[in-house]
Amino acid sequence: MSNAEPLYPAPAGEPSAPEGWLNAFRNVRAVSEQLCSPLETEDYVIQSMDDVSPPKWHLAHVTWFFETFLLKPFLRGYVPLNETYDHLFNSYYETHSNPFPRPQRGLLSRPTVANVYRYRHYVDEAMGMLLNRPPSEHRHAIAERVCLGIHHEQQHQELLAMDIKHILAQNPLRPVYSKSLQIPPERQPLPMRWRAYKGGLVSIGMEPGREGFAFDNERAAHRQYLEPFELASRPVTNQEYLCFMEQGGYQDPAMWLSDGWHLIRENGWTAPLYWVKDGEQWYHFTLAGWRPVDPNAPVCHVSFYEADAFARWAGERLPTEAEWEQAAKKARHWNGNFAESGYLQPVAAEAVTASNPHEALLQMFGDVWEWTGSAYRPYPGFRTLSGSLGEYNGKFMSGQMVLRGGCCATPASHIRPTYRNFFPPSARWAFSGFRLAREATGEPCRDSFSQSAV
Amino acid sequence: MSNAEPLYPAPAGEPSAPEGWLNAFRNVRAVSEQLCSPLETEDYVIQSMDDVSPPKWHLAHVTWFFETFLLKPFLRGYVPLNETYDHLFNSYYETHSNPFPRPQRGLLSRPTVANVYRYRHYVDEAMGMLLNRPPSEHRHAIAERVCLGIHHEQQHQELLAMDIKHILAQNPLRPVYSKSLQIPPERQPLPMRWRAYKGGLVSIGMEPGREGFAFDNERAAHRQYLEPFELASRPVTNQEYLCFMEQGGYQDPAMWLSDGWHLIRENGWTAPLYWVKDGEQWYHFTLAGWRPVDPNAPVCHVSFYEADAFARWAGERLPTEAEWEQAAKKARHWNGNFAESGYLQPVAAEAVTASNPHEALLQMFGDVWEWTGSAYRPYPGFRTLSGSLGEYNGKFMSGQMVLRGGCCATPASHIRPTYRNFFPPSARWAFSGFRLAREATGEPCRDSFSQSAV
Amino acid sequence: MSNAEPLYPAPAGEPSAPEGWLNAFRNVRAVSEQLCSPLETEDYVIQSMDDVSPPKWHLAHVTWFFETFLLKPFLRGYVPLNETYDHLFNSYYETHSNPFPRPQRGLLSRPTVANVYRYRHYVDEAMGMLLNRPPSEHRHAIAERVCLGIHHEQQHQELLAMDIKHILAQNPLRPVYSKSLQIPPERQPLPMRWRAYKGGLVSIGMEPGREGFAFDNERAAHRQYLEPFELASRPVTNQEYLCFMEQGGYQDPAMWLSDGWHLIRENGWTAPLYWVKDGEQWYHFTLAGWRPVDPNAPVCHVSFYEADAFARWAGERLPTEAEWEQAAKKARHWNGNFAESGYLQPVAAEAVTASNPHEALLQMFGDVWEWTGSAYRPYPGFRTLSGSLGEYNGKFMSGQMVLRGGCCATPASHIRPTYRNFFPPSARWAFSGFRLAREATGEPCRDSFSQSAV
Amino acid sequence: MSNAEPLYPAPAGEPSAPEGWLNAFRNVRAVSEQLCSPLETEDYVIQSMDDVSPPKWHLAHVTWFFETFLLKPFLRGYVPLNETYDHLFNSYYETHSNPFPRPQRGLLSRPTVANVYRYRHYVDEAMGMLLNRPPSEHRHAIAERVCLGIHHEQQHQELLAMDIKHILAQNPLRPVYSKSLQIPPERQPLPMRWRAYKGGLVSIGMEPGREGFAFDNERAAHRQYLEPFELASRPVTNQEYLCFMEQGGYQDPAMWLSDGWHLIRENGWTAPLYWVKDGEQWYHFTLAGWRPVDPNAPVCHVSFYEADAFARWAGERLPTEAEWEQAAKKARHWNGNFAESGYLQPVAAEAVTASNPHEALLQMFGDVWEWTGSAYRPYPGFRTLSGSLGEYNGKFMSGQMVLRGGCCATPASHIRPTYRNFFPPSARWAFSGFRLAREATGEPCRDSFSQSAV
Repeated sequence: MSNAEPLYPAPAGEPSAPEGWLNAFRNVRAVSEQLCSPLETEDYVIQSMDDVSPPKWHLAHVTWFFETFLLKPFLRGYVPLNETYDHLFNSYYETHSNPFPRPQRGLLSRPTVANVYRYRHYVDEAMGMLLNRPPSEHRHAIAERVCLGIHHEQQHQELLAMDIKHILAQNPLRPVYSKSLQIPPERQPLPMRWRAYKGGLVSIGMEPGREGFAFDNERAAHRQYLEPFELASRPVTNQEYLCFMEQGGYQDPAMWLSDGWHLIRENGWTAPLYWVKDGEQWYHFTLAGWRPVDPNAPVCHVSFYEADAFARWAGERLPTEAEWEQAAKKARHWNGNFAESGYLQPVAAEAVTASNPHEALLQMFGDVWEWTGSAYRPYPGFRTLSGSLGEYNGKFMSGQMVLRGGCCATPASHIRPTYRNFFPPSARWAFSGFRLAREATGEPCRDSFSQSAV
Repeated sequence: MSNAEPLYPAPAGEPSAPEGWLNAFRNVRAVSEQLCSPLETEDYVIQSMDDVSPPKWHLAHVTWFFETFLLKPFLRGYVPLNETYDHLFNSYYETHSNPFPRPQRGLLSRPTVANVYRYRHYVDEAMGMLLNRPPSEHRHAIAERVCLGIHHEQQHQELLAMDIKHILAQNPLRPVYSKSLQIPPERQPLPMRWRAYKGGLVSIGMEPGREGFAFDNERAAHRQYLEPFELASRPVTNQEYLCFMEQGGYQDPAMWLSDGWHLIRENGWTAPLYWVKDGEQWYHFTLAGWRPVDPNAPVCHVSFYEADAFARWAGERLPTEAEWEQAAKKARHWNGNFAESGYLQPVAAEAVTASNPHEALLQMFGDVWEWTGSAYRPYPGFRTLSGSLGEYNGKFMSGQMVLRGGCCATPASHIRPTYRNFFPPSARWAFSGFRLAREATGEPCRDSFSQSAV
Repeated sequence: MSNAEPLYPAPAGEPSAPEGWLNAFRNVRAVSEQLCSPLETEDYVIQSMDDVSPPKWHLAHVTWFFETFLLKPFLRGYVPLNETYDHLFNSYYETHSNPFPRPQRGLLSRPTVANVYRYRHYVDEAMGMLLNRPPSEHRHAIAERVCLGIHHEQQHQELLAMDIKHILAQNPLRPVYSKSLQIPPERQPLPMRWRAYKGGLVSIGMEPGREGFAFDNERAAHRQYLEPFELASRPVTNQEYLCFMEQGGYQDPAMWLSDGWHLIRENGWTAPLYWVKDGEQWYHFTLAGWRPVDPNAPVCHVSFYEADAFARWAGERLPTEAEWEQAAKKARHWNGNFAESGYLQPVAAEAVTASNPHEALLQMFGDVWEWTGSAYRPYPGFRTLSGSLGEYNGKFMSGQMVLRGGCCATPASHIRPTYRNFFPPSARWAFSGFRLAREATGEPCRDSFSQSAV
Repeated sequence: MSNAEPLYPAPAGEPSAPEGWLNAFRNVRAVSEQLCSPLETEDYVIQSMDDVSPPKWHLAHVTWFFETFLLKPFLRGYVPLNETYDHLFNSYYETHSNPFPRPQRGLLSRPTVANVYRYRHYVDEAMGMLLNRPPSEHRHAIAERVCLGIHHEQQHQELLAMDIKHILAQNPLRPVYSKSLQIPPERQPLPMRWRAYKGGLVSIGMEPGREGFAFDNERAAHRQYLEPFELASRPVTNQEYLCFMEQGGYQDPAMWLSDGWHLIRENGWTAPLYWVKDGEQWYHFTLAGWRPVDPNAPVCHVSFYEADAFARWAGERLPTEAEWEQAAKKARHWNGNFAESGYLQPVAAEAVTASNPHEALLQMFGDVWEWTGSAYRPYPGFRTLSGSLGEYNGKFMSGQMVLRGGCCATPASHIRPTYRNFFPPSARWAFSGFRLAREATGEPCRDSFSQSAV
């Protein structure tokens, strides 16, 4: 797989100079619109479940973010295009204004898609004015917030991909998002290996002097003590997950957390989201349409409960987020199958070169977000941003699990080893998979955990 | 108010001759599209509550009806445009095929609005072929079903008006359906009078020899014995309903059916649907936007429970459907404020002429559907149509109340004295109001029931 | 079957003389306690669904009724035993005081069963004082309300039987209410015959001069016109209902009202309540324990929807309540399998004597309440009682269907031809069955409708 | 407060010798029955919410535990009293048999309370036989499981106190559990102080060689690195919590985790569970009846969300479970207000002696379970027990938060510094309070955090 090029180069020395951000701002704005360009007008309107937002809402909300946190406070004389948008497109900032109820986003036919684009361009123009001539006393705050706004819009680009997929998947007409997506390569199965880490006292989180953007939840950097551990060389594949399914994984309560067991029983889950069996063959819905499941690609669209059940069935466990981060920091590159690859689905891992068979840790970045065994809680010394931006991350630190590494819908420039994503343990519509871990044993890897589990 | 002209003349001798129906078919099809012409594409997609269907679904479903019950059985060589539409646009005909779940109609971005229109035109063309050269052995069945299909589409025209209103009313941007609707005339208050009927053995339902279409639920014609009764000369007005509200009608459990009391408490209802108070003035949402409530117009968008509570508070009751029908049959005309008037909202009653002040029964047709005190149950001798069309009406004969007389969104040619509409007693999004009745007393009408009720 | 003796003779000339009611009062009070005598203390506490009340709540509520409507207004110096009981044991009289929420009745461990009996005896003693020396100015009101209170307590005796059955049926330990219940006789199958009625203008409801008690909902007596009709000689039996089940009645949407179809699908109903199949044999829970279903006994514990579906499947319909009443008034006796028979379950019909094979209408009273096709709505001229007692019946006149004739748990002295019972169409825990009707045909009865329906 | 004496001495060298456990077994069994002795029969039956179990169910379930995991596998010839009990009293051991649905435990009137006690004594007798003459090949397993069973029954003793409190609190009659409970002493307010801990690499969890029982979730002992931190000298008091309430804590979204904010809004929470304001005075329900809130006692019956919101409002945070445990291990004693104190409610802290004012850490054990900021997840190296006992703790390790230290309803011998209790963050019916923590600052304690927060 050729390395994905980041869609825009991050300005050097971020986030000190507002002017330097204008190109990056324009680039990220363009990517969002490009992502929606294959959609029909009607596709923009649908909210297929409470967790999903209509694509036009995403496009408007990220615009509202720049308007609210940059234009209104810092652009002298700025007049909003429509006062009601502050209510409609506030996602969850309760201290700012009354957010429009999330489950009702799909009840809004207006503003129309055309008017949402009009809103975007109105704000884009104003942002151009602000960034070209930022008021000197607010230069630092502006630079910081533009940077945050750009990363915020990137997050919504990934949500757009997830939500569009979910919307189209509901439809018995089996619509295809785009026929010009990249076709995944056929690759040979690659055995899973264990990579050993010696643990000890390690630094976790974004360190103070380190260059580049990080969210507040990646701070404060702090020390953690890790026992020696081992990490799988690649995520669990569809083939391996099928083995779990066929051997009764979904029928055996001993494999499951109690909440997970009740969830799969109530919902009748017996396979990952989007999977449908036709005869002997499993198919799954992708943004390129319904496709046979590739046995060698990482399993995707599983909940934390399913990841955890698989790990228990395999006699292993999920890594903690600190273990994952420690291993990721030791990896030599952050390459991966990101949004820029043009697949918008996970693909099978590429064999490492013969000269270096044992060290490589494959697919740590891109392809699938990897569920960890860590609940999403604040780091020691965590501080939220001031004002309403303090609601950005901190208030979600309960009831969710941490995922790491980005996925096939993540912009390449958006990810880093310290990045903490989070979803409720029941969520499946993200591009979520997982990788196994275990206490250090020094034993060689079994040929296949699935055979030994029989 | 000038009398509404029916949008198309019903062919004489309906429904014997298929060819005679082609114009009527084309007219009704054109009206549906004209009704949707002010909509934005996005408006077509929304399902604002389970009872509401997206406008594009309505447009497709009425088309499916012609395709399913005429083209497929009778047009030789007919090939459907899309096989999946049979699933998507089957409303509730369980014996025909598996209907797409009603609450999920708003999850369908596809087919697009453009493709729904394409579907309509495809079916229209095929219908033209069928009606121009109907196979002789099916002439009668075809004529009957075209007639039914036309009345079916008219029903959905009214539903379109109701549903579009509900969809737009959810939106904080306060969209207006159309700025070219007729503006209701300002009229003086008109006192309510009692009209006396002597009852006795009367004929109810559509009589066998009678010309013109009727649904199966209007048959069999049969005799009922009515005690003498009196009927109010006009529906209850907003002014009168406001009096009920101000005198604590919504706070006094003694006024309410038990189900109604629990419903209004759980939902916090204290006024008709779409009413909002601003300062001292009540406003309500109309298809022409938010407007002050006209005190002299009939109250609208009330549930059966509210109509019943008002009647109890006023010391009166609702008429039975037989009483209503008997009075309607004695009325001299079926004029009224129908869809063709172009208001799409109820308007104040026009004073009767000085020469005939006591006989007139105002607004029996049009303006608002009138809740009766009768549960929707089959008439003696009721027979459903054969095959899947037997599901048209009969299976809904539980849990609903009968309404009579049509409303401001009903096509004029669609209504008749025997027409039985029905909604659950909790429904409020129809254009539903009510008229009072009482046992015959011979007493003159009190000046105002609301004053005496104080 | 020997005729049941009424448990207490109704005082002559009811309800004029309070003193005459003392024995009747004491008798009905004793019957309630006798009915509960087989219960364990724990059985008194359970509320197995929202519709069910704990037996001790019933015992206390009927006591509260006498206290509230007789002792407090009429017994000078009466001091309630516990002020909080007025809240706890008010069922639904919203205009009297705030009723304790119905679904929480099962959360009350106190007052204990012993204290509920203490409450009963406290009120009984005070009632003795009141009825022995009623204040002369209130003699008529007192007599009327005692009579109402007695019939009210009889209604709750039947509810006690229904609720106790439902409570015990939940329990995997399969408890038996009482081992000393009468064992139903084994009887031969009895063919269903049609009895013809010529209809015409008939009087419905309790006529003014008629002796004996009636609820407000049985008035005003009024005329109805009936087309000629025929009524089945006996209720539908378990054998006939099994035929419906075996021939796919629960699987065919064409048989069902829409609400009923959705109800049976959501709840997975495929048989009457309390039925369980073991191998080839159907068993059902009775107050005497789990028993094989008697093919010749009337089917019981079916909802209105199931009764209606059976009738449609059989090509017939349910009678209206006026048809039922007209036929019942022509019957020669009101005998039947009532509570006093000691079965507390429906039993097979007894063959009529050879000398009179064609006239008899069997099991019109007792055994099972018979669903009619009539919605529960007020009669013309209906007036509620004054004050809070106006909430007794009138406010429930929506969303329910009428049942007629009493059942195996009804006290014999409680029933009459004009009696209107009512339940929501989905209810199954009452002893509810049904009898077929049809338009008059003059045709002889088919040997078996179930065979011809094949 | 005098130190509570453990109700029974733990056998030395647990859990090696079965015989040594007989006295402990008999003691713990007696305590459960003693705890229920003030109840009326009716109190045993109620399930006031899904989380609560009827007291008789608790008494039976703990008995089932001994029967299932000891008598059936190890007592030769043991015949269960009732086969159905295995279904009824299996709480959640899905791999053992089908557990009776939890929300339906309150629908079981049978077995009666008397029969539940009969079941207890039947099992007690059999346990006596087993423990007096344990089969030699199972000595170790039996000792281990008896020990587990005893600690299991102790857990249910605490649940009994919580559940009985919740059951009685629903009742408008305001029943009192017992009038012979100890009356809490009146004590002076005690300022909150900060105690500093230097952190570093510490050992967490139950160490291998350590004597005494521990649950599987307290293992494996492992190292964690802690940054320096400070811990409050005592839990937050009612007085302090009232300050939070009065200063709008429940109205300010900035104080709350998102899930918590939605929870308090939906449920209308504005105070701890069981609190009711009467005029200016707050009262709360206790097992001794309704009492004025003691300002100096620890706040109790708050959810994790409320504890977290208070901490944010105070500018501090909750301790992690590792911080709490590290501090607890350094404390000199494990004394506290436990079940044996006889209050069954938290009481105000007693001032430390003048000679040692700065070191003491008050109320770490007993009074209130202390919410920590740690999600309940497995420790590194965690292994579940084998067989169905593996479901004891491990499967609940998602969606819950850890609480530490025991409470006023915990048996004294049941607690230890490594003990991990857990509840969902929304739970309030446990005796749950909290203690503040912060990063090490070296600053002296502010006089009152609540004043500075104004």
